[in-house]
Amino acid sequence: MGREELIRQIGLKKSMLCVGLDPVRSKMPAFLQEKEDGLFEFCKAIVEATAGYSVAVKPNLAFFEAEGVEGWKAFQKLCDYVNSEYPELLLIADAKRGDIGNTSMAYAKAFFEIYGCDAITVAPYMGSDSVKPFLEYTDRWTIVLGLTSNIGASDFEMKNLEGGMPLYKEVVHQVSNWGGPEQLMFVTGATQSAYLSELREMLPEYFFLVPGVGAQGGTVEEVCKSAITSFGGLLINASRSILYASSGEDFALAAANEAASLQSQMKGFL
Amino acid sequence: MGREELIRQIGLKKSMLCVGLDPVRSKMPAFLQEKEDGLFEFCKAIVEATAGYSVAVKPNLAFFEAEGVEGWKAFQKLCDYVNSEYPELLLIADAKRGDIGNTSMAYAKAFFEIYGCDAITVAPYMGSDSVKPFLEYTDRWTIVLGLTSNIGASDFEMKNLEGGMPLYKEVVHQVSNWGGPEQLMFVTGATQSAYLSELREMLPEYFFLVPGVGAQGGTVEEVCKSAITSFGGLLINASRSILYASSGEDFALAAANEAASLQSQMKGFL
Repeated sequence: MGREELIRQIGLKKSMLCVGLDPVRSKMPAFLQEKEDGLFEFCKAIVEATAGYSVAVKPNLAFFEAEGVEGWKAFQKLCDYVNSEYPELLLIADAKRGDIGNTSMAYAKAFFEIYGCDAITVAPYMGSDSVKPFLEYTDRWTIVLGLTSNIGASDFEMKNLEGGMPLYKEVVHQVSNWGGPEQLMFVTGATQSAYLSELREMLPEYFFLVPGVGAQGGTVEEVCKSAITSFGGLLINASRSILYASSGEDFALAAANEAASLQSQMKGFL
Repeated sequence: MGREELIRQIGLKKSMLCVGLDPVRSKMPAFLQEKEDGLFEFCKAIVEATAGYSVAVKPNLAFFEAEGVEGWKAFQKLCDYVNSEYPELLLIADAKRGDIGNTSMAYAKAFFEIYGCDAITVAPYMGSDSVKPFLEYTDRWTIVLGLTSNIGASDFEMKNLEGGMPLYKEVVHQVSNWGGPEQLMFVTGATQSAYLSELREMLPEYFFLVPGVGAQGGTVEEVCKSAITSFGGLLINASRSILYASSGEDFALAAANEAASLQSQMKGFL
């Protein structure tokens, strides 16, 4: 999905919600835990329940990998399902890949060509040749880690470089020279709202993927106040607060309610 | 495999060779390219041919992921094969994972529990809570990116922080406080031999996993001169120069010859 269509969807749905799919079998409703296909069934139900309130869906690969080959089958099935039933949702592989050039090329091939994802998250530590192979797919999105939502962000990302610029700013500055806002986004954590507005000033045209709302403590209001643009410019992710809103048979309804609540908070800013 | 046994294997085999498995179907011998199980058959043949000259084997996940679910089946089969037939080889998942705590936990579970790998490579950008879940597996190895072998290393890793220390040194310094040399290694590129000796001074007890020999231009001699220790202290990786030493039916023999040549270069330093 291209930038124009994404912006159109945001306008149509009055939402910038990205639903993060971090399926953990032990946290799923009991009747799904035992099902061989439980991971897919759970994610499918969540997507169905929340699609009206969201513009993106973000499966987190770790939770599929943790189930071995069967987990990858579930991921494949989920990608096929979203692409056929909900082509209006941006499908983001939250994989945080990144390696030397020929290896990043293989990762890009996997997620863009095999699984048909619209976007993938990429770790920037190894520099340009680890990121550029993803950007060669100009009709897909490369979403590079800038400033993340976790406590460990202070260990390296927020360390100042010589000259006084923190590493995460150097990363977004350099990386934004490798690709334009029609194919590149940045991960900027909701828990770092004090820094979001500075990043928005640096990068007025780029979309930010913002994790950390909900279980991690960030709020929609803070994020929007700090970094919304005339075109939206944000994909605000919530995972656990939606997925596990209820552990009962009503989990999908509870997820829909949580998504609707987040969407209604966003609506006021759009 | 623990540190003591790894050091014993290095002494026994007079080798610090790690064979990197980056299987690309189009570069494999023609008779294997068409086989459904070609990826596994190719890797199996390489492991068999080189096991006498190596102490570690390092499948690179990107090249398995690029074949979708079938690639993961091949990876699972390869892990099972190495663990049952060559338990004396350290099995390293070159996956460069890393995410917030609960997600890194899921990645650790995947590679240590599901696939039974001895070690995994981890990207440090997101800081402590992205690395520590791997270190909770105290009987496995966490191998954190320090200074990588690629050209992009200069973009961020080699940038100086306030006070003058480059980022990669801050990374290895901080991370070495999170785990001891019995469970933690660092990736330090062979193409950066000028910096290897400095890292060795900082970290006399830690193993370094050294990629970049062969196709990327580093040499065994430079690496050993810069960073060998009394216990070896190095796993020197070669991938493409071994895997694709011949594209004919003699590929395994050619791989063995290349591995033997690298081992004989190491022998002199051990």
